[in-house]
Amino acid sequence: MRAIDENTVTDAVLEQMASTADPRLKEVMVALVRHLHDFAREVDLKPEEWLAGIGFLTAVGQKCTPHRQEFILLSDTLGLSTTVNALHDRRMAASSTKSSILGPYYRQNAPAFQLGESIATKTHGQEIAIYGRVTNQADEGVSDASIEIWQTDEDGNYDLQKDDAEEMDLRGCFHADDQGRFFLRSVRPHAYMIPMDGPVGKLLRAQGRHGYRPAHIHFLVGAPGYREVVTASYLAGDKYLDSDTVFGVTPSLVTETKIDDRSSPLPSLPSLRFDFTLVAETQGAASGRVGADASQLSF
Amino acid sequence: MRAIDENTVTDAVLEQMASTADPRLKEVMVALVRHLHDFAREVDLKPEEWLAGIGFLTAVGQKCTPHRQEFILLSDTLGLSTTVNALHDRRMAASSTKSSILGPYYRQNAPAFQLGESIATKTHGQEIAIYGRVTNQADEGVSDASIEIWQTDEDGNYDLQKDDAEEMDLRGCFHADDQGRFFLRSVRPHAYMIPMDGPVGKLLRAQGRHGYRPAHIHFLVGAPGYREVVTASYLAGDKYLDSDTVFGVTPSLVTETKIDDRSSPLPSLPSLRFDFTLVAETQGAASGRVGADASQLSF
Repeated sequence: MRAIDENTVTDAVLEQMASTADPRLKEVMVALVRHLHDFAREVDLKPEEWLAGIGFLTAVGQKCTPHRQEFILLSDTLGLSTTVNALHDRRMAASSTKSSILGPYYRQNAPAFQLGESIATKTHGQEIAIYGRVTNQADEGVSDASIEIWQTDEDGNYDLQKDDAEEMDLRGCFHADDQGRFFLRSVRPHAYMIPMDGPVGKLLRAQGRHGYRPAHIHFLVGAPGYREVVTASYLAGDKYLDSDTVFGVTPSLVTETKIDDRSSPLPSLPSLRFDFTLVAETQGAASGRVGADASQLSF
Repeated sequence: MRAIDENTVTDAVLEQMASTADPRLKEVMVALVRHLHDFAREVDLKPEEWLAGIGFLTAVGQKCTPHRQEFILLSDTLGLSTTVNALHDRRMAASSTKSSILGPYYRQNAPAFQLGESIATKTHGQEIAIYGRVTNQADEGVSDASIEIWQTDEDGNYDLQKDDAEEMDLRGCFHADDQGRFFLRSVRPHAYMIPMDGPVGKLLRAQGRHGYRPAHIHFLVGAPGYREVVTASYLAGDKYLDSDTVFGVTPSLVTETKIDDRSSPLPSLPSLRFDFTLVAETQGAASGRVGADASQLSF
């Protein structure tokens, strides 16, 4: 019988997992176990700290509801989501639009709108125009592109954070015209604090972090034959651009809101232009789809 | 503004966490983030794999109830619990009893029994005696030692797994006599399969693992002025000793069940002897207490 100690245990685990049928699951779990054990050895993790960790992860799981995904929030605030997005971007062509984090507020089945309509169906605020073009790598318009968009209101709240969370607002789905162009109306979003009333908020406070995200607009853009892009446009000038609590901002995603923008389809409104470059889906390649509704997650 | 990519994101996270007030929390989280990002980069984690992981962890959290701790089960099956216990043992004197995993079935406030009584208050089975002595490092009996014990029945089920989970059975708390000796009656435990109906079971099946633990008896032993020991006694001859699905077995914890044991206080029963060596609690040292009731965990 093997004597188990803090070092030999790792091989014992890897041996038991050697029978994993799926080679990718095996590869991922081997690396995970190695890093998990290395982490515990490196910090000489104490039993009471381990127990605090178990309690924390349990609280994160129990905070999740169909309207709140605390584990995505944890992944976001630890920078894991951005790491995964950046690895995804690296596999794409350099010219494709950079990813940004999905965040915990994506919802499937957002209402469909016609070009030019406003997604602000319930809230009032400073009206803005959002427009742009979806192109492929040959700079040709992608005529059947779909653009899903979601954002906060002027106070920094998503519809899901409100009392009537079942009612959708400030989110919608548009289809580009025959040249890949889209335009719509909305209200100016505001910097917002991520939900701080759960275990993730408690951790952030213990870390002395402010918990704010700069004002931004989420996009999920796709078309048949192309890889979906999950990204966001960050409003230039926001004071949290350099300290986004979920590390979603990179310079190519920061956008100026322009007054008297002659190229805007709605030039009377402050206009924000954001273009997307899609990459063709290569046969057999894994999808980059990360747009599952959090409430529908299952292992 | 910093350009964020799959490498620079790590420094961005570490910078935001630099304001952590508690130096130990900071140390642990820095190592955790480094390993988490290294893991993602090493396996080139895909967005859909990340999402599967989020869904898995959420399911683990939501499976937890006051009577079931799926995150401890996950930690156990990944060998993390044993790693933490082994690190704890390494900090103890070499002569102390080795730790073994607490497992998900510990309960606070187990009923108190007098020496010689049986903890099998509701179940029947092959009766056995369990006895031993609690000593300090000078081999002196620890007169006021408390011995908490819990185990499965003959079918491999804990009380918490039964329909009337509120009713305690096969668990109890004893106090040693003035020489540190204890003895009690029970029924022979059986190898058992960990709960396989949750996300952890699904993972184990995907890994081709049998999910069994060899027959064992849990102990939590302590006394004023000494560090608690959380350990278990494993019954010699069990076929799963070498492939315990939670890696709790090490040779020094394997015990023979003897017939006609002249040193047993109950020699008419098959007797299992298990002695404990406690280490004095040094001033200011952190407790090794890992005996919190899973239902009372909070961050």
